[in-house]
Amino acid sequence: MLDIERALVICAHPDDEVLGLGGTIKKMTNAGIQVDVLMFANGNEGYTTMEDKDRIVDIRRKEREAVQQILGIRHFETYDYEDYAIPANEVTYKICMKAIRTYKPDAVFTHYWKEYNTHKSVASIASDAFWQAGWICSLDLGDPWKAQALYHFEVIELLPHVSHMVDITDTFEAKMEAMRAYASQCTVVSGALQQIEGKALMRGAQVGLKYGEAFLKNINRPEIIR
Amino acid sequence: MLDIERALVICAHPDDEVLGLGGTIKKMTNAGIQVDVLMFANGNEGYTTMEDKDRIVDIRRKEREAVQQILGIRHFETYDYEDYAIPANEVTYKICMKAIRTYKPDAVFTHYWKEYNTHKSVASIASDAFWQAGWICSLDLGDPWKAQALYHFEVIELLPHVSHMVDITDTFEAKMEAMRAYASQCTVVSGALQQIEGKALMRGAQVGLKYGEAFLKNINRPEIIR
Amino acid sequence: MLDIERALVICAHPDDEVLGLGGTIKKMTNAGIQVDVLMFANGNEGYTTMEDKDRIVDIRRKEREAVQQILGIRHFETYDYEDYAIPANEVTYKICMKAIRTYKPDAVFTHYWKEYNTHKSVASIASDAFWQAGWICSLDLGDPWKAQALYHFEVIELLPHVSHMVDITDTFEAKMEAMRAYASQCTVVSGALQQIEGKALMRGAQVGLKYGEAFLKNINRPEIIR
Amino acid sequence: MLDIERALVICAHPDDEVLGLGGTIKKMTNAGIQVDVLMFANGNEGYTTMEDKDRIVDIRRKEREAVQQILGIRHFETYDYEDYAIPANEVTYKICMKAIRTYKPDAVFTHYWKEYNTHKSVASIASDAFWQAGWICSLDLGDPWKAQALYHFEVIELLPHVSHMVDITDTFEAKMEAMRAYASQCTVVSGALQQIEGKALMRGAQVGLKYGEAFLKNINRPEIIR
Amino acid sequence: MLDIERALVICAHPDDEVLGLGGTIKKMTNAGIQVDVLMFANGNEGYTTMEDKDRIVDIRRKEREAVQQILGIRHFETYDYEDYAIPANEVTYKICMKAIRTYKPDAVFTHYWKEYNTHKSVASIASDAFWQAGWICSLDLGDPWKAQALYHFEVIELLPHVSHMVDITDTFEAKMEAMRAYASQCTVVSGALQQIEGKALMRGAQVGLKYGEAFLKNINRPEIIR
Amino acid sequence: MLDIERALVICAHPDDEVLGLGGTIKKMTNAGIQVDVLMFANGNEGYTTMEDKDRIVDIRRKEREAVQQILGIRHFETYDYEDYAIPANEVTYKICMKAIRTYKPDAVFTHYWKEYNTHKSVASIASDAFWQAGWICSLDLGDPWKAQALYHFEVIELLPHVSHMVDITDTFEAKMEAMRAYASQCTVVSGALQQIEGKALMRGAQVGLKYGEAFLKNINRPEIIR
Repeated sequence: MLDIERALVICAHPDDEVLGLGGTIKKMTNAGIQVDVLMFANGNEGYTTMEDKDRIVDIRRKEREAVQQILGIRHFETYDYEDYAIPANEVTYKICMKAIRTYKPDAVFTHYWKEYNTHKSVASIASDAFWQAGWICSLDLGDPWKAQALYHFEVIELLPHVSHMVDITDTFEAKMEAMRAYASQCTVVSGALQQIEGKALMRGAQVGLKYGEAFLKNINRPEIIR
Repeated sequence: MLDIERALVICAHPDDEVLGLGGTIKKMTNAGIQVDVLMFANGNEGYTTMEDKDRIVDIRRKEREAVQQILGIRHFETYDYEDYAIPANEVTYKICMKAIRTYKPDAVFTHYWKEYNTHKSVASIASDAFWQAGWICSLDLGDPWKAQALYHFEVIELLPHVSHMVDITDTFEAKMEAMRAYASQCTVVSGALQQIEGKALMRGAQVGLKYGEAFLKNINRPEIIR
Repeated sequence: MLDIERALVICAHPDDEVLGLGGTIKKMTNAGIQVDVLMFANGNEGYTTMEDKDRIVDIRRKEREAVQQILGIRHFETYDYEDYAIPANEVTYKICMKAIRTYKPDAVFTHYWKEYNTHKSVASIASDAFWQAGWICSLDLGDPWKAQALYHFEVIELLPHVSHMVDITDTFEAKMEAMRAYASQCTVVSGALQQIEGKALMRGAQVGLKYGEAFLKNINRPEIIR
Repeated sequence: MLDIERALVICAHPDDEVLGLGGTIKKMTNAGIQVDVLMFANGNEGYTTMEDKDRIVDIRRKEREAVQQILGIRHFETYDYEDYAIPANEVTYKICMKAIRTYKPDAVFTHYWKEYNTHKSVASIASDAFWQAGWICSLDLGDPWKAQALYHFEVIELLPHVSHMVDITDTFEAKMEAMRAYASQCTVVSGALQQIEGKALMRGAQVGLKYGEAFLKNINRPEIIR
Repeated sequence: MLDIERALVICAHPDDEVLGLGGTIKKMTNAGIQVDVLMFANGNEGYTTMEDKDRIVDIRRKEREAVQQILGIRHFETYDYEDYAIPANEVTYKICMKAIRTYKPDAVFTHYWKEYNTHKSVASIASDAFWQAGWICSLDLGDPWKAQALYHFEVIELLPHVSHMVDITDTFEAKMEAMRAYASQCTVVSGALQQIEGKALMRGAQVGLKYGEAFLKNINRPEIIR
Repeated sequence: MLDIERALVICAHPDDEVLGLGGTIKKMTNAGIQVDVLMFANGNEGYTTMEDKDRIVDIRRKEREAVQQILGIRHFETYDYEDYAIPANEVTYKICMKAIRTYKPDAVFTHYWKEYNTHKSVASIASDAFWQAGWICSLDLGDPWKAQALYHFEVIELLPHVSHMVDITDTFEAKMEAMRAYASQCTVVSGALQQIEGKALMRGAQVGLKYGEAFLKNINRPEIIR
């Protein structure tokens, strides 16, 4: 799964990349894998006091830049969609196709398709784009590129099945540091940091590791065995 | 389930609140529970003669006002979306979140998520908003509010599982009266009144009541037992 | 299934009608059944060289006209939506309802509801419209019409269950000819013609025919047996 | 659906054939269709007083014979399995295959596959036997026979989808009479007769009939359209 | 959920009751609720050295007796089925029905129905028995008893939805002590104790508690609201 | 997927191993991978004339021995269950666990879990045994062994998703030869050989190969990524 050169993460909001696969991103960048992140929303709804309402987008941008350093993300391609307003339409679809054709990832990571509204939208367009980017069509979005695999990560819902469990024991502290860098979000959901630790402990324990991150490989499109 | 103080019904069209839970609304208001209804569509497609085309929105508004009296609904928050045009987007999502934070319901009632297009949209945004309204975010929509429970009612499809069956024997006549008040809709689907009676009889008979209304409690978000 | 007078095919892109049910369309028109096709997209993304980008819509229109001749389609009602931009909204929904009320088909054919984005959208609106067109409402879209049956065809995904297998042994060559008429699309997916042959052979073999096309009857709305 | 010559009903307990499709059986026999019933259990658990414990199997046998007369069933092939003890194994499987090859039905009717334990078992073996009876194998069970269609009826759970709704307005009274003939069972579940009426009314109302019985056609095996 | 007088746990193996709901059992017994456990298997496969093969059943019986003390379980009704040999048949079904009618629980707790073989069997018979125990039939198994609710707990798989999260912060230590009392099983799966802690932390964190146990209420049978 | 040393195929009937993965077995043995097959049934029902009834088990044994040569299977572990009588119980479960611990496969191949009765049984016990064989328990069945992966192959139903498509272009002829060696079975289902060719062509065409065999990787148990 991680025997690759380039990975692309497609997510909705600033902090989804940390909650879902912060430990795995760090593990990949430590190993010299290039990791790019495509992120749609600007974080405008995540303010916990009215005073922050007009500042929250700026705050989260800065937090995200800190996270980029912590996790070693090469390129953060961000858009300015509002948090509840990421449509699954031709514009966002083409953004995904173009990113896949531009960054040429071996593996794509995106949301699990049964989470809530915007996470569903992103999972849907990213999954279809993963597949259609390999067709010989829409050439102004770049040359066709077939990524080898698509993995779904968990943010809100627990994955009902886990096809791959990544050992993040060595990078768990970086995941926590990255989440603490998203300081504005640590109080939106109470116990966010405890939740990260509990989930990592449990996922690890399921397979005999200290800390784990869970993924579900998308099996809608076959891997070819020659 | 009905040991509560306030309930909020979120539905698509004028008459869905009667078809789905008219008997339960009346039972709640009889018991002193405050019931508010959030309704998105204006009923513009429900005309059965071309003469009524331009009058149907007015007709249904008046019908709805009569129903409000019959069922004892406190507040009818209505919008002017056309019947086939209720999008599941950030605007309707925020309407739901704001209503939940404003009316502070103990229980939320909405459509079943497998019915047809607009019912699906409403079920989707209401279900996500039920949950996200409790987060510490988006404060201009009001202070966070965690409703205790979310129930789905049946209008077009039969619920495949019924978690709660409400005895509406005492309020069945009010349900029929309310449906008759929606006179313009009684001929859109042939046998509408018979269908209401048959369903109430059957739902009642399933558990030994005369007349029943069926609900499916949403179990995506846990109830906390301390 | 084919003991009917009129059929309506509702599909997304120019070539879906051939891939999904080209052999069955030809079989129907050979038998004197009127077949109309409602198609939403203009094919703008299916160019395999940059030179064709600005010409592809024209090319596919001409290809489609040739296919109309080959298969004997009576009326091709086409729209100018871009390939990735067919929304499931009130506009496309009304287009479907109006077409059903206009062409008065005995059977409606549309996409399978689990294929990718635009195919999902078309499957969704066509399925709901199939049902709602029979209601007494929205009369400016025509008089109510209840088609007898709705069938889903397969383009990208294999149907997991097949309710009807049509023997297309006699019209398989016409299906191949129609696909070759969509010359611009035969290289978008490599091996397109081989894929058509393999699928037809396998579908046929499943029930002892030479070539078959598979359909899944929609069972959400009951057939009435008097 | 009923344009056939012979039908075979495969069910678990004495009264399932009435609850599930009593009105349709009568409608078929009225129309000259031969209806045979294969029934596995002897009804030993359906006693409502300890005095009846040792007599219940006899009682239900006599009730069943009365029902045979009322509904016009040609042949009742019964077995002596206890009510909770119908296994899904090679013995019951071969009973089904042999019955299908012996009675040569055009249509087979059996339980819905999501009901409780023994109903699930019967649904499972009957569905597989419906299909395997047509293979050229196991010739000591009779010559291969391919029935045209398999339908599931509803006894405990409501069918989530209804593919065929049979108008039983004319035979509803016979259904009630047959159920009353199963007098011993009318008190096992309280409100049994009311439940039958409520369900028939509701099923009818769904499609504009007075009384209806609902069926779900099994779509796992294709109908061949030549 | 826990505002009850009596609870019955129906499980497969010695330690499932601890893994699944040890903290909740202790919380209930602390609150004066009577908790009985029906357990089918004798634990014969859980030996980790060949020397223990002939002693393991004895070992686990003694461990179970210690757990009974630790958790305050009133009655342990145990059977001698081998670990891989719990059939879903009339014998085990009647054991469940009889236990429900004997202990008269307000709430029944059993396995989640998607876990592996024997857990599936137990979930299936317990769920059907929960419902059928309330019928007026099979009186030699006791008088009819309708328990109010049925909850599924998680042992191997994570519940995909959690309807109730019980705060076990105060009884978590008792759960760990009970698991340690099942000393023979702590090495069958490596990291068993860590897994318990990780899961309890994560489940708690999901709703803002320190330690939690997750349940899924069975919604196949309606609660009646009068 | 095939970068392994040993594979174990667990199947129901003599010919399932050819229909499901004959080409892949040959490809593996050509590459020096050891392939063992565990087969439960003796083929007693597959006679197409009454004369063959008493000889069919012998016939199929000889056919199977020829297939072993053709495909290069190392060890054929066979049992004498009748074709419709493979139970999912502790005996068959232990047979699977013991085989996995004995042959120590890197990959296990078994039926798809939604096919018919005995295929379902085998899929169920093989899937659970794949997982439980790695536990430290039941040591008289051999030392714990964790196979890396479990794959499901298709015999009767088409897999709804294909995670791996094996190129069997070079071994397709061996697959056909093996099927012809099962001469007694080529007429049980009409068009058996055509069906094999059609499916292989279609599966190949889906991904640009000449002939393919489809597999679905079981994702219930995670692969650990260190």
